[in-house]
Amino acid sequence: MRIAIDCMGGDVGLSVTVPASIRFANDYEDVDVILVGIEPLIKSAINLIDEVPSSRVHIVNADEIVTMDDPIDIALRRKKKSSMYVAVQNVKEGNADACISAGNTGAWMAISRYILKTLDGIDRPAIAAYLPTNKGGSTTMLDLGANVDCSAKNLLQFAIMGTALLQAVEYVKNPSVGLLNIGSEIIKGNEVVKEAGNILLSSPLNFYGNVEGNEIFSGKVNVVVCDGFVGNIVLKSAEGIAKMFSGAVREEFRRDYFSFFSGLVSSPVLKRLKNRLDNRRYNGASLLGLRGIVFKSHGSADIESFYFALQRAREAVMNNLLEKTIDKLSQINQLLRSFNS
Amino acid sequence: MRIAIDCMGGDVGLSVTVPASIRFANDYEDVDVILVGIEPLIKSAINLIDEVPSSRVHIVNADEIVTMDDPIDIALRRKKKSSMYVAVQNVKEGNADACISAGNTGAWMAISRYILKTLDGIDRPAIAAYLPTNKGGSTTMLDLGANVDCSAKNLLQFAIMGTALLQAVEYVKNPSVGLLNIGSEIIKGNEVVKEAGNILLSSPLNFYGNVEGNEIFSGKVNVVVCDGFVGNIVLKSAEGIAKMFSGAVREEFRRDYFSFFSGLVSSPVLKRLKNRLDNRRYNGASLLGLRGIVFKSHGSADIESFYFALQRAREAVMNNLLEKTIDKLSQINQLLRSFNS
Repeated sequence: MRIAIDCMGGDVGLSVTVPASIRFANDYEDVDVILVGIEPLIKSAINLIDEVPSSRVHIVNADEIVTMDDPIDIALRRKKKSSMYVAVQNVKEGNADACISAGNTGAWMAISRYILKTLDGIDRPAIAAYLPTNKGGSTTMLDLGANVDCSAKNLLQFAIMGTALLQAVEYVKNPSVGLLNIGSEIIKGNEVVKEAGNILLSSPLNFYGNVEGNEIFSGKVNVVVCDGFVGNIVLKSAEGIAKMFSGAVREEFRRDYFSFFSGLVSSPVLKRLKNRLDNRRYNGASLLGLRGIVFKSHGSADIESFYFALQRAREAVMNNLLEKTIDKLSQINQLLRSFNS
Repeated sequence: MRIAIDCMGGDVGLSVTVPASIRFANDYEDVDVILVGIEPLIKSAINLIDEVPSSRVHIVNADEIVTMDDPIDIALRRKKKSSMYVAVQNVKEGNADACISAGNTGAWMAISRYILKTLDGIDRPAIAAYLPTNKGGSTTMLDLGANVDCSAKNLLQFAIMGTALLQAVEYVKNPSVGLLNIGSEIIKGNEVVKEAGNILLSSPLNFYGNVEGNEIFSGKVNVVVCDGFVGNIVLKSAEGIAKMFSGAVREEFRRDYFSFFSGLVSSPVLKRLKNRLDNRRYNGASLLGLRGIVFKSHGSADIESFYFALQRAREAVMNNLLEKTIDKLSQINQLLRSFNS
C-alpha cells in the first residue's frame, strides 16, 4: 500500500508532516510513504530523524507550494507543479492508493476534483469526518465545507456517500442517517432542508428523520447530513467550545496552591480525560465522491494528530473504500431508480 | 416594575416557573410578578412555597395552554386565551413592562409579533442570547432561530439590533459586529452572507468582518450575526458538546476508588468549574425588534435557570432597553440614510 503525502501543507508543514509520516511508516510495515514536496527540504527534515525505514520512504519532488491563502483558481491554474497537484496525480496514475494534505482545504478539494473527477451519480464531492459522541463512539458528519450552497439533491447524495462510507470502513450494515435541522418535525427548516427531508423519507436509505444540533453529539444516528456552510460552522464551533472547556479546566486547577495540589492528586484522572476529549484522535476527513481516496488533515495538526489522519487513510485503503463506495453507490442508485419508477 | 410570566410554558411548567418567580419577587423588592396561567393550578403551586411576598404577586387567569408541539397557526389563531397570549397582552396594554415564557419558541415569537408588532425599520424580529467566551465575558449572538431563511438586509437589521442591545444594556459604546461565515475573507460563504458582508462593510456599524465558528467563543467581537437556521444549530450543538464534556468529567472521576478520592480532594475546584461552565447562567434570550420587552427561557430550564432569565428581563427593563433600542435604531438608520445618500 502506498500513500502520497503533501509534505508542504498545513500551518507548520514539513516539521509536522515528515516526522509523522516516518513514524507511520515505522509502525506499519505494509505501508510505503511517498513524500511529496521540495526535495532538499524533505531530505533535511528526514535527516533529523533517527529511525527511517528507507526502503519504504520515497521522495517525489514538487517545486511549488499552495499557501493557505491562495485563491482556488491560483492553486488550480497557476501552480500545476505544487505538492498538492503532484500528490493527487500519484493517485490518478496508480502510483499511490491514497493521498493526504493538511493544506488549504478549498484548493485541495478543487485539485482533487479536477484531477480525479467525481464518481458516477455524484454531482459534488463532500468532506466527511468523525465527531465524538457522549456514548463514546462517533458520528460521521458531512458536508463540512466543500459546498456552501446545496440543493436537496446534493444532500441526498451526501446521505448516500455517508451510508457507503460507514458500510465500507466501519462495517455498519444499515447506517441511520439524520438530516441536520432546527426541529424534529419534517415541516421545520429552510426550503432546501424541507425538500431534502421529503426526498430522504421516500428513499431506500435508513433515514431517521431530522436531528438537531445537540443530537450530533448524542450518537443518535450514524450519519448526519448538512450543507457545507452549516457543517463547517458547527465543526469550528465545536473546536471553539472544546478549547474554552479545556482552558477553563487548566485555569481552575492553577488558581491557587490548593487547586494545584488537587490537580496533582487528580492527574491520572485529568490525563484520561484529556485523552478522551483529545480532538486530535478525530483528525482525518475523507473527501468523498471522488475517483480516488483523498484525505484531509486539519491545518493546525501536530505530529500526533497528522499520524491519526494517516492511520485513517490506511484504514480506507485496507477496507477498499473506493471499490466498496462505488458498489454501494450503484446498489443504492439502483434501489433509488426502482423506487422512483 | 411589573413582569408578566407565562407560568404554563416549558418542559416542566408550573413547578419551575412559579417557585422561580416567587424567589425572584422575594429577592427584588422593586419587582411585581404577574403570574399568568390556569389560576387554581398557580395557586396550588404558590401554596407549596413558604415565603411569598403576596402584595407583589398577582395572578392573571388564562385557560388555554400552548403546547411545545402546537403548530404556530394553532397557537396564533385557535388559542387566543392561552397564557402566552395573555402575558403578551399585559405588555401591550401597559400592565407589564416585560413578559417571559419558557414555552414553544415559534409560537411565543409569533404571538409576540402579532400582538406587539415590529419596530420601525425592522422587518423581522430576532432572538438574541449571550454565549460564554474563553475570556470570561460573553458574545451576543443573533438570530438563534426566529428566521430560517434570511436576506442580507435581514442580517444587517440583526446587526443593528445587536448593536443597540449592547449599547443599551451592556453599556458598550461601539460594539463590534462579526458576520458568521466559513472563512475570514469577504469573498467566502454563501450568496446571502457575501452580500451581507458587503452591506455591513459600507455601513456605519463597527463591522469587524467575518468570524468563523470557533471565534464565537473567543470573545473577538461583541455581536455575532447569522441567520436563524445556522444560529439555532450552533446553539444546540454547543449544548450538546457541553453535555458531552460534563458527562466525561463525571464519568472519569467515578471510574474507580482512586478517581473518586481525587474527585473528593478536587471538589472545590470541580465546583468552581461547574459554576463557571454552568449554561444556566446564560439562560434568557431577548426577542429583539418588537414594540415591547419580550424574553424567552430555555424550555428545559430548572428553577435556578428560569430565575436567571427573570433577572435578565429585569435588567432590560431597568436599562430602558426598549426606549434605548428605538433611539439607537433611529440614530443608526439616520446614519445609514446619510451614508446611502
